Amino acid sequence: MSLNSDLTIALDVMGGDNGPFITISAAIMAIKKQPELHLILCGDESIITNILARLKIPKDKLADHKQLTIYPTSQVVLMSDKPIVALRNKKDSSMRKALDLVHEGQAQACVSAGNTGALLSLAHFVLKNIQGVERPALISSLPTHDNNKHVFMLDLGANVFCDSHVLYQFGVMGSVMAEQVDGIEKPRIALLNMGEEDIKGSDHIKLAAVELSEDKDINYIGFIEGCDIFSNKADVIVCDGFVGNVALKTCEGVARLVYQKSKTAFSASLLAKLFGSLIKPSFKKLFKTMNPDQYNGASLIGLRGIVVKSHGNANATAFLAAIEEAIKEVERQVPEKIKASIEYGFSNRSSTL
Amino acid sequence: MSLNSDLTIALDVMGGDNGPFITISAAIMAIKKQPELHLILCGDESIITNILARLKIPKDKLADHKQLTIYPTSQVVLMSDKPIVALRNKKDSSMRKALDLVHEGQAQACVSAGNTGALLSLAHFVLKNIQGVERPALISSLPTHDNNKHVFMLDLGANVFCDSHVLYQFGVMGSVMAEQVDGIEKPRIALLNMGEEDIKGSDHIKLAAVELSEDKDINYIGFIEGCDIFSNKADVIVCDGFVGNVALKTCEGVARLVYQKSKTAFSASLLAKLFGSLIKPSFKKLFKTMNPDQYNGASLIGLRGIVVKSHGNANATAFLAAIEEAIKEVERQVPEKIKASIEYGFSNRSSTL
Repeated sequence: MSLNSDLTIALDVMGGDNGPFITISAAIMAIKKQPELHLILCGDESIITNILARLKIPKDKLADHKQLTIYPTSQVVLMSDKPIVALRNKKDSSMRKALDLVHEGQAQACVSAGNTGALLSLAHFVLKNIQGVERPALISSLPTHDNNKHVFMLDLGANVFCDSHVLYQFGVMGSVMAEQVDGIEKPRIALLNMGEEDIKGSDHIKLAAVELSEDKDINYIGFIEGCDIFSNKADVIVCDGFVGNVALKTCEGVARLVYQKSKTAFSASLLAKLFGSLIKPSFKKLFKTMNPDQYNGASLIGLRGIVVKSHGNANATAFLAAIEEAIKEVERQVPEKIKASIEYGFSNRSSTL
Repeated sequence: MSLNSDLTIALDVMGGDNGPFITISAAIMAIKKQPELHLILCGDESIITNILARLKIPKDKLADHKQLTIYPTSQVVLMSDKPIVALRNKKDSSMRKALDLVHEGQAQACVSAGNTGALLSLAHFVLKNIQGVERPALISSLPTHDNNKHVFMLDLGANVFCDSHVLYQFGVMGSVMAEQVDGIEKPRIALLNMGEEDIKGSDHIKLAAVELSEDKDINYIGFIEGCDIFSNKADVIVCDGFVGNVALKTCEGVARLVYQKSKTAFSASLLAKLFGSLIKPSFKKLFKTMNPDQYNGASLIGLRGIVVKSHGNANATAFLAAIEEAIKEVERQVPEKIKASIEYGFSNRSSTL
């Protein structure tokens, strides 16, 4: 196995609803775009070699291929597997091995489109939290009214409940993501709440607001409501995993509803039908970007390694976007920067105690 | 004051962003549609008489008008007023008096487009909970993929946190609403969660699931995710007020985002621009129904009286829809039915203890 590249990413090629052809196609797209990228394809060897052959990379040439390595695994984490099953009984799964490679330093990041719950549990078990980080979080970027800007939101479902200090840390980690991945100076951090006024919300949200506003390194701008997630008022929106998961999935539900209702509107009359068929392509594109999870995946941050979760239903372009997200996080050394920020905040707070 | 009608509703005409002209216009529309309806207009007397005159109901004819009564009040709860200010210092406000009239039995329901937080606090203080109901809830109906069906969702923001028994009671109250207001037999009740599997979510959600499934009068169908709110899988979706508020406002945010992005898509080329301008009206209508809160208001249920909250930004049609919602709840005796269901459940559970 040639693991001498500076930029090595382990792919769980078996994960996802659409099978390894999609993930391997994305891998080929990625190495073509980035000549210094090395990908380790974790999964069933015969399936992978067959697909590679179909994609014009025959088996006998693979040994010479500097950008691709197969890491044969014998198990697959199914979409229906409970996390505990994946953890205990699937130690040779493509997902587990991809994470092991990151833990062992043989890869710098892992990308999977597999079972989210299993990936969160395995990643947490294999990679462990960065020192000082209480809980890892699932973060993704969503579109805003400004076409050139998006907004990071976390946690999107890694944790059911988060106390005030965990929310504060999400603010710190989100700030690092926006700064490093998007190059935003002093990213605007907001807490998602049921109103903008100070008196609104639960005690732990009010306490998180105090903690965030007292950290001089965080540009905390206050509470934000659901209707303003996409308003470009904030660069990072912080909430617990339950609320974030419901909000993100509600977006998906609304996008689907609008799409279905607009199809009906378009077919209401012959004229509308004609117009609709002409506008349909740009509309499809629009609704695709409205589903950010499907578009560019979500990252699990706060761990000692980079893990990007692509949507289970991702096509090759979406899986490619997830690989590119992982590359960005490797290049910007996101875990190291999060470690430094959490440590700095910790020593800062300690000195004022 | 003639309060001899069988169907009397008190309106807080001063509440809302758009002023009393909107609310009074809606009142006139309502009495024209329903000859047996009597409305009590609570608010500034001179403003109301002036507006009525502009709407062709002159002051000297008002005494003969069997469908309209003015109830003069000297104060207005502002949108910026904290609930405690409304409660302590605005005892002669239009909002407070409209609720007092319900409490005194002079009206059977109250409709307001005013400050939500103040309305929730005042309504709770003036009307009190139905015996056995732990917390009132804000409920509204949202559109689904099926044009002929909508889904009720509660709580939308009356309570920040709800324990398992409160969530269970929301299920019972939501079931009564769907049965009485929509005439659905055995409405399908679901709990909003971050996954459909039994192991997902917080302890209080899992406990609420147990309590709902053990109640033989409730058709509990399990957990539902944010993406399925609009799928017509459930007739009633139960969640705590924080999550419900974020989900509802996120819908509003997504609808606004899609509208803005689709406008851009429509103006991308001259052809698209032309098509867009022709399709715009049906699209505007679509996005209006996508914002259910603005469309037909939300009801505060679990109190000893009917309170319907119209959106602050409601126009006359939306405020009319809120009045009509109140009429429906009066006719179907929703509070009495909730009382019976909560008592029945209570005695049922007590007998098995």
